[in-house]
Amino acid sequence: MLMYNMDRLYEAASEKGHVCVGLDTSADYIPPHSRRLFPTDAEAVLAYNRAIIDATSDMAACFKVQIAYYEALGRAGLDVYARTLAMLREKNALSIADIKRGDIADTALQYAKAHFEGDFEADFVTLSPYMGMDSIEPWLAHAESRGKGAFVLMKTSNKGMRDFENLELQSYPHNHNNLCASAPLREELPRVYHAVGDKLAALADKYMGTHGYGAFGAVVGADPKTGDEREEAAALRERYGNLFFLIPGYGAQGGAATDAALLLKEGNGGVVNASRSILKAWTGAAGTDTDPTKANISFAAEAGREAAAAMRDAIREAANK
Amino acid sequence: MLMYNMDRLYEAASEKGHVCVGLDTSADYIPPHSRRLFPTDAEAVLAYNRAIIDATSDMAACFKVQIAYYEALGRAGLDVYARTLAMLREKNALSIADIKRGDIADTALQYAKAHFEGDFEADFVTLSPYMGMDSIEPWLAHAESRGKGAFVLMKTSNKGMRDFENLELQSYPHNHNNLCASAPLREELPRVYHAVGDKLAALADKYMGTHGYGAFGAVVGADPKTGDEREEAAALRERYGNLFFLIPGYGAQGGAATDAALLLKEGNGGVVNASRSILKAWTGAAGTDTDPTKANISFAAEAGREAAAAMRDAIREAANK
Repeated sequence: MLMYNMDRLYEAASEKGHVCVGLDTSADYIPPHSRRLFPTDAEAVLAYNRAIIDATSDMAACFKVQIAYYEALGRAGLDVYARTLAMLREKNALSIADIKRGDIADTALQYAKAHFEGDFEADFVTLSPYMGMDSIEPWLAHAESRGKGAFVLMKTSNKGMRDFENLELQSYPHNHNNLCASAPLREELPRVYHAVGDKLAALADKYMGTHGYGAFGAVVGADPKTGDEREEAAALRERYGNLFFLIPGYGAQGGAATDAALLLKEGNGGVVNASRSILKAWTGAAGTDTDPTKANISFAAEAGREAAAAMRDAIREAANK
Repeated sequence: MLMYNMDRLYEAASEKGHVCVGLDTSADYIPPHSRRLFPTDAEAVLAYNRAIIDATSDMAACFKVQIAYYEALGRAGLDVYARTLAMLREKNALSIADIKRGDIADTALQYAKAHFEGDFEADFVTLSPYMGMDSIEPWLAHAESRGKGAFVLMKTSNKGMRDFENLELQSYPHNHNNLCASAPLREELPRVYHAVGDKLAALADKYMGTHGYGAFGAVVGADPKTGDEREEAAALRERYGNLFFLIPGYGAQGGAATDAALLLKEGNGGVVNASRSILKAWTGAAGTDTDPTKANISFAAEAGREAAAAMRDAIREAANK
């Protein structure tokens, strides 16, 4: 039987914990004493990625590479992007290409070829669902043939999620009741993100892995702060039991271990991404501005390792409560 | 006063017509006798783009480059992508980078840097709104400083648009009435794409150009076939008078000139994209499979020119009716 990458990710989370190290690597995150040693920012970023990957791969369930940071460096940046993914493959580390692509038909097939094969091959991608399921389905051939996976944007934790994701729906195909008749249950009206989640859950049933999660999962942000938001997060975890969650928003974006843990399930079911809190962990140490023995890549990678370990432990502890 | 690229596009549409030539160039679209002369598909695609641009630039309001086709060729493909945009700049032709990116905060700023500066600089981008307006707003700094423009996905014409874009909303910030009270007006309930359009219209008012259209417009698909759909298209054009439309779906995707014309306004207000019907126009001619004098790039570019001219004339005629 085909093993999906989502099965491998489940096992990695079980073995190593829930940390997904985000390689959203801006050259600005590199200690300046080291950065200066490289002829270009692109080369500095590649060296920094290598150091971070080496320092964290034994405790990271996976790595998420945010392509925007590489596109911003032009052709040289995409060369570094390709080489970063190659380093992850060599280490047998699972990679998530954070590309949030979303297009249909032939264009979607071209994108799938671009990110599941060749120079930019990754184990997982992130996708945007706006155009509908025909922007998601063309990627599935690669799940069937080679186990590839995806995380589709569902409910994110940015302020703008209220603009469209969070809007209340009058009705939608999964809910044929006239919801106006049940006005007292207003707080239970489906929202746009539920429509997305329900479609993804149906897809997960069709492409079910060996650990109870479908080949494609969902992006669900981790910043439930208030009591209502915490209940909502728990309800989401309950409602979408077959969706593995990619959970951004930890650390620099404000989410805490207890928030992220609400989106986990029986000690698994999700990975929690942190980028800046790992990549820039070195900036918290004394002397890093001026002391060359501290303001360098090895020191920064070690600080990143410590931040990742602390995060792993905090999430495990919160999940076990 | 700053001139937005959207103003330049309005003027180009007025002067040259409404055709946006889509460079979704697959090597498969190139006559095989010519394709074989190039050592790589990437080089064949670059030569084909050059020929198509040369043949159509006097009658194309703009060119839309679909990045997926270039990403699919890896690093070499993105080199061709960059060089294609450079060719358009040299010709002073307006370029739309069809990238449908959608991300927030620092990531959005990196994407904006990637596609409005440097190797991949374009005049316009396409954006996906799922995450909310904080995935659109970071791109506006480039509108203010250098006139850059964008088209945000609003209502597309693929089948999957029914999954999320087309869902009916219970209420949303622009409509505080309880819509349940007006059940007989059910067909007028706002949909997700209206929520997107209303936000974009408010933005267009803030970043208003010299010809009555905002710096950022919307992607609205052209395939209104039935009477109801035609009414809906006309209503959309009426409701969003300050949004310039990028209209895909013409030709190979099934939309006709009369459908596209419904989305235009007073002989302007939109450009209509066609890709395969121009890039593959040569396949309709007799002898192109076997006759080397026909199965080559010059012949194909001339066929593309004729297809673009016919499309321009058909849309003008339909718009004048």
